[in-house]
Amino acid sequence: MKHNVYFEGGVQSLGFADAAGNASVGVIDPGEFSFGTSTEEVMSVVAGSLDYRLPGAGWAVAAAGQSFTVPAGITFDVRTTAPAAYLCRYR
Amino acid sequence: MKHNVYFEGGVQSLGFADAAGNASVGVIDPGEFSFGTSTEEVMSVVAGSLDYRLPGAGWAVAAAGQSFTVPAGITFDVRTTAPAAYLCRYR
Repeated sequence: MKHNVYFEGGVQSLGFADAAGNASVGVIDPGEFSFGTSTEEVMSVVAGSLDYRLPGAGWAVAAAGQSFTVPAGITFDVRTTAPAAYLCRYR
Repeated sequence: MKHNVYFEGGVQSLGFADAAGNASVGVIDPGEFSFGTSTEEVMSVVAGSLDYRLPGAGWAVAAAGQSFTVPAGITFDVRTTAPAAYLCRYR
């Protein structure tokens, strides 16, 4: 597995691969962060709550147990006021 | 948050704290590993499947979406044949 550090440690993840493909689990510390996608990503919140904004859309909320899909090749924003943990699957 | 590395990287986690207390998300690579607990832990599998064995019990299986509780002050075993991701909450 691979430990990834973004935004000076404000977002960190552990990447792994299983039968379903590449994936990561991570934690997003309080703040607002932008990410670019190279593949479609399915983000599932596993702890806390995450605000997210896709291109051309307003802010939406994903609580623990909820997922959202991010298209390939775009930049999207996330923000949270408390640490949020997620599972991300890369399609 | 804190990046924790166990068993020469075979198990890694990201520790964080939220309103519910201390928690971590992590990945367990294929293999068998033993952990000691200082507090009660609730382990929830978020990807893959994890075999676990509590003291005095046989192996049991937790699939993605399932949880098991580990008492404080014991040693328990986990094993997997494919990477498993988990959320652990410390009580």
